[in-house]
Amino acid sequence: MSTKKVLVTGGAGFIGSNLVDALLASNHRVRVVDNFSTGKREFLSHHISNSSLEVLKADLSDEGICKNAVAGCDAVFHLAANADVRHGWDHPLFDIQQNTVVTQSLLEACRLTGIRKFVFSSTGSVYGDAKQIPTTEECPFPIQTSLYAASKLAAEGLIGAYSEAGVIDATIFRFVSILGPRYTHGHVYDFVKQLLADPTKLFVLGDGTQTKSYLHINDCVAALVQSLGWNNPLGILNLGTTEVVQVRESIALITQALKCSPEIQYSGGNQGWVGDNPYILLATDQIRSTGWSTSATIASSIVDTVNWLTENRWVFN
Amino acid sequence: MSTKKVLVTGGAGFIGSNLVDALLASNHRVRVVDNFSTGKREFLSHHISNSSLEVLKADLSDEGICKNAVAGCDAVFHLAANADVRHGWDHPLFDIQQNTVVTQSLLEACRLTGIRKFVFSSTGSVYGDAKQIPTTEECPFPIQTSLYAASKLAAEGLIGAYSEAGVIDATIFRFVSILGPRYTHGHVYDFVKQLLADPTKLFVLGDGTQTKSYLHINDCVAALVQSLGWNNPLGILNLGTTEVVQVRESIALITQALKCSPEIQYSGGNQGWVGDNPYILLATDQIRSTGWSTSATIASSIVDTVNWLTENRWVFN
Repeated sequence: MSTKKVLVTGGAGFIGSNLVDALLASNHRVRVVDNFSTGKREFLSHHISNSSLEVLKADLSDEGICKNAVAGCDAVFHLAANADVRHGWDHPLFDIQQNTVVTQSLLEACRLTGIRKFVFSSTGSVYGDAKQIPTTEECPFPIQTSLYAASKLAAEGLIGAYSEAGVIDATIFRFVSILGPRYTHGHVYDFVKQLLADPTKLFVLGDGTQTKSYLHINDCVAALVQSLGWNNPLGILNLGTTEVVQVRESIALITQALKCSPEIQYSGGNQGWVGDNPYILLATDQIRSTGWSTSATIASSIVDTVNWLTENRWVFN
Repeated sequence: MSTKKVLVTGGAGFIGSNLVDALLASNHRVRVVDNFSTGKREFLSHHISNSSLEVLKADLSDEGICKNAVAGCDAVFHLAANADVRHGWDHPLFDIQQNTVVTQSLLEACRLTGIRKFVFSSTGSVYGDAKQIPTTEECPFPIQTSLYAASKLAAEGLIGAYSEAGVIDATIFRFVSILGPRYTHGHVYDFVKQLLADPTKLFVLGDGTQTKSYLHINDCVAALVQSLGWNNPLGILNLGTTEVVQVRESIALITQALKCSPEIQYSGGNQGWVGDNPYILLATDQIRSTGWSTSATIASSIVDTVNWLTENRWVFN
């Protein structure tokens, strides 16, 4: 694959900064645009003397900034998003602005400048409470259960319309939750944060039976980088493992890694919060047919995450 | 059914004003909010002395106006939209603003004021080029083929999220194209306009084989009014006929009604425009199970439309 100039929106975030590492390692040139609302300078600071990386602090809500952001790039990885699934109802208009309207502004910028390659990070949450598990990309049309997922599905629809109109070559990845270094939100983060503050107690949302699939960031990023070389857009692809883990099992792995035995208090109910999907497992035959496969297990991903968080306690501040 | 105070957004439009007629005829009180960008005063002027109708000229892009619009209402029919499917690419950011962001502002207004009943006019276009015909509500998850449909699907997702969170009781109708009095855009309108100007020639987008289903406005409005009495929200419902018509057959009915024999020039291809779906037929078993049925045929709907347009040529100005 020839080297490319690649825009990574949200490139200072968890997934974004890991993608930047991988792209630079493959000799691509990278432009990061991030508003640093959740992204962190520290996640990119090891590249400070690398002239192949350009970092712009800017908010993509501005259409002009979108045009500047894509200018001169061969491909766009659009990862910037409000990824706070849980607290959507605290600021209900935020998801649609940050995740949907910004996506279209970026699509417009691509249309106006002729940039065709567009890779989007969507979410397995768009399947809502899927009737079909493992859930295939062709699963019956779901009811959205969170504003986050609704805003991502809306963005997918727009990307589909631009793609069908021949404007872009798009790949949409529907991610399960991702774990690994620089992971800074979600239940493993919450649990480790609680246990580092007080290893004797752990408060858990739900009853611990929520069953989820997690993917290691290295496996996630490998799929994203690989997609840059695809000549034909592959459309919509689930990205996850074939494994699942219950929250209770996840807690056991975390407490073992942290060498503590907290008293666990469950809030009850099979949902962690309004809109939480109690069982997520995506069918990944399509992405596997491209040759991609996972190298990490969920257990090793959890332990890797706990270790990174323990060594990087500054992220809790 | 007890009488209610009902907000009809887009109430001066084709479907909206017919709905207003039907709601007033059933003794409901109605508030219309319309920005009159495509809505017409003439469609409501026969109610000028009816104190049960309140008409506000306002744009729902303003969140404050959304709150004022829903205040004191028992139910919201959200019909306001940019319904210009064909020209989405002339103003790509318009659909998402008018159809998606406005919908969420209205949902927020309902949430903040405790209004639960929310009825939404979506579109069969969300199925894109459906593989399954007749297309059921549970059809596999489609790729969007127009910005209009993408923006409507996005709005559906948001409504689903508000509904699943227990904020509202929502009914989403996915309409086929609607015909009848006050119909002011679409192929019948275009053809009648051309033929009234010059009955010897007719220019047709596509090859005339596009196959669509059409519903008479009276049958459409009957379903909407009926939904007001449903105690349990029925979720997502297709609304259409079991019949289809090819553009060529439609032309035959129009020219017969207008008593002309134009020379017909086809632009070619099986799509009328980028994103046009060449075959639309929705499965309507769900709505029929509520007791609703159609009273008009497609042929009679077309003739009724042609006659209304002929008698109301002012709409072409």
